[in-house]
Amino acid sequence: MSASKALLILCDGLGDRPLDALGGRTPLKAAYKPNLDRLARRGISGIMDPIAPGIRPGSGPAHLAIFGYDPFRYYTGRGIFEALGVGMEIQKGDIVFRFNFATLDKERRVIDRRAGRIREGTRELVKALGNIRIPGVELLFKEGIEHRGILALRGSRLGWKVSDTDPQKEGLKVLPCRSLDDTEESRRTADIINKIMEQAFEILENHPINEARKAKGKPPANAILIRGSSHYEEVPGLKERFGLEGACVAGGTLYKGVAKFVGMEVLEVKGATGTYGTDFRGKFEAAIKGLEDHNFVFLHFKAPDLAGEDGDSLRKIEVIERIDKAISGIEELRDTLIIITADHSTPCALRTHSGDPVPIVISGPGVRVDGNEGFDEFSASKGGLGRIRGLDLMPILADLLNLASKFGA
Amino acid sequence: MSASKALLILCDGLGDRPLDALGGRTPLKAAYKPNLDRLARRGISGIMDPIAPGIRPGSGPAHLAIFGYDPFRYYTGRGIFEALGVGMEIQKGDIVFRFNFATLDKERRVIDRRAGRIREGTRELVKALGNIRIPGVELLFKEGIEHRGILALRGSRLGWKVSDTDPQKEGLKVLPCRSLDDTEESRRTADIINKIMEQAFEILENHPINEARKAKGKPPANAILIRGSSHYEEVPGLKERFGLEGACVAGGTLYKGVAKFVGMEVLEVKGATGTYGTDFRGKFEAAIKGLEDHNFVFLHFKAPDLAGEDGDSLRKIEVIERIDKAISGIEELRDTLIIITADHSTPCALRTHSGDPVPIVISGPGVRVDGNEGFDEFSASKGGLGRIRGLDLMPILADLLNLASKFGA
Repeated sequence: MSASKALLILCDGLGDRPLDALGGRTPLKAAYKPNLDRLARRGISGIMDPIAPGIRPGSGPAHLAIFGYDPFRYYTGRGIFEALGVGMEIQKGDIVFRFNFATLDKERRVIDRRAGRIREGTRELVKALGNIRIPGVELLFKEGIEHRGILALRGSRLGWKVSDTDPQKEGLKVLPCRSLDDTEESRRTADIINKIMEQAFEILENHPINEARKAKGKPPANAILIRGSSHYEEVPGLKERFGLEGACVAGGTLYKGVAKFVGMEVLEVKGATGTYGTDFRGKFEAAIKGLEDHNFVFLHFKAPDLAGEDGDSLRKIEVIERIDKAISGIEELRDTLIIITADHSTPCALRTHSGDPVPIVISGPGVRVDGNEGFDEFSASKGGLGRIRGLDLMPILADLLNLASKFGA
Repeated sequence: MSASKALLILCDGLGDRPLDALGGRTPLKAAYKPNLDRLARRGISGIMDPIAPGIRPGSGPAHLAIFGYDPFRYYTGRGIFEALGVGMEIQKGDIVFRFNFATLDKERRVIDRRAGRIREGTRELVKALGNIRIPGVELLFKEGIEHRGILALRGSRLGWKVSDTDPQKEGLKVLPCRSLDDTEESRRTADIINKIMEQAFEILENHPINEARKAKGKPPANAILIRGSSHYEEVPGLKERFGLEGACVAGGTLYKGVAKFVGMEVLEVKGATGTYGTDFRGKFEAAIKGLEDHNFVFLHFKAPDLAGEDGDSLRKIEVIERIDKAISGIEELRDTLIIITADHSTPCALRTHSGDPVPIVISGPGVRVDGNEGFDEFSASKGGLGRIRGLDLMPILADLLNLASKFGA
């Protein structure tokens, strides 16, 4: 019997390196996680290089690869995924940027890259930015979480290979946007961005919201800093490529955006925040429900990555245990492949992504159970899957689901 | 904690196949090698296909791949590496050949491909070859070890895809050099080589050194046989690609040449001969010293390959044991990744390179210790690294050294 559905549970940043404080164990190895271990005993484990051995993956490229889309071909920048994730209607050819609301002084020097992490009033500020007019190009602004937002340029003869205006450091002047490939199209885009930056400053500097912030001694959000230029091209979706009707349960906009990009439906779940405070069990239940009318559900948990970036191994253990608890009863799923893995390692000792491979287990009908006793980086490396790459995962799942078409005859 | 330096110890031709005479063990498995085994117990092991599974690597392409340079793209021939290894100043666009001094009869038939393995006087003969004049092209000759030498052509409109003039067999006539790609540039190079061959014969035939050889009944070095056409292009170095300031400790010119090609500094070590008689401990100590002002040291031991090519499994065991002894104390290196591997297998039963994967172990801060008990082909294949390729090694090291840049965001 083959499984007819698959549930991919991706624990962001799950992989780690051995820690002296844990007696040479990783947080995953040290955690009490009976459900994950049971999946390993009933499944086949391995290690996976999300992109390639030693490559430190950004989250966008890593998810693309795991969904079967070569990031060397499909990844241009994070902007389009953030835009799709916040629900913007992006069209083929759009050039998409992320921006921060920031605080500049009169000399256009950056005082605060996040305008005091402004939370309120950004919708009104974005509405005011809608008054910017550049002949021949349509501008779309959208507020994101906190100080973040998205800008899309729509029009013809636009290039996307342009530099950031965010100097990434306070005290420095805003950078002019420049063409990176010296084409007329990219020069035109850079010119447009520079005009937008200038008009944005004029509009925001005296906006009532900023007057109020100044009156309260808060840094005004009087500028936008632009980065992550990317361009949107439609790709054949998971349904067309692998026969997978996908649904996504995630808190963070990036993950929702990548899921939309590859043709998944994004299921909105109350309490799914992409933070430590997310509703782990609520997300799991939403994923189970999603399996009723999809044959592929992608469930994303962000918390292990946050703990890794905080360098907090005890917290990482704790969130792994919470995930394990949240999925209790998972073995009752019939007719379903369950995959547990990560998009990259985030070693607590590094506080950032690393290129170490991630553990993976596939459990369910048809897999060659390898006799592994638990789920962690060490035992996974001795499992029956061997060492695979992110790009291998979807073909393996499609095959186990008996959806793969034969190569030749 | 991450390591900040890496020491790559490459034991040439180390891998082998099971031998009946050793009770089904390989020389590495049979050797007494407490230091290598200790590194395996403290490290992560695996097997590595230097180029790709089943591909029998030449030493040049294998080293290129292990240093992170795809040999399908960067390898043209051995000439440039030998030239760099003997210290010639090679420039972009140079066409470089290896040559042998040889003995021809009057009909240009090869009597001795190595001119009686001539050892003395080759510097004077090379100096005489410097009188060859070909309009429009600069010629550079350099003597190598014994009967060997290097010829570089420098000029414009020169192609490198030309055939050897060495017929590889005594009794046959010297081959004319021909264009292999039918371009004007390669035809021009072939024409130049044929003229050089002719002028070399005229110059060498009556050279006093050869007169003296004939008087002593030795075969005169009255010709050169040309092979291994290659061309030189500068490549971005290890520093630029992986953040590695490299140094090389090796005896053989090929290995020094590849190291220079990828931007390493070659440390000259007295007693490093690339033979059985090399000063194993002296080389190891030079490598340790090299780590003081480099964050990457490549230490090359040639002897296991020589024993493999001699088909002498007992000698292979002995040189492995000598290497093991030479590196004693290696575990005292702090803050340093230690990598032990090979560029290819040289099975004693074959007496030549094979495509069998080679064992590899990486030991040091941050690695996921896999519990392997010893270092040999069998246990390595069950280690936590799984099966990687030569091209994967440098990205993995750069990642463990926290030097890798992130792919996307």
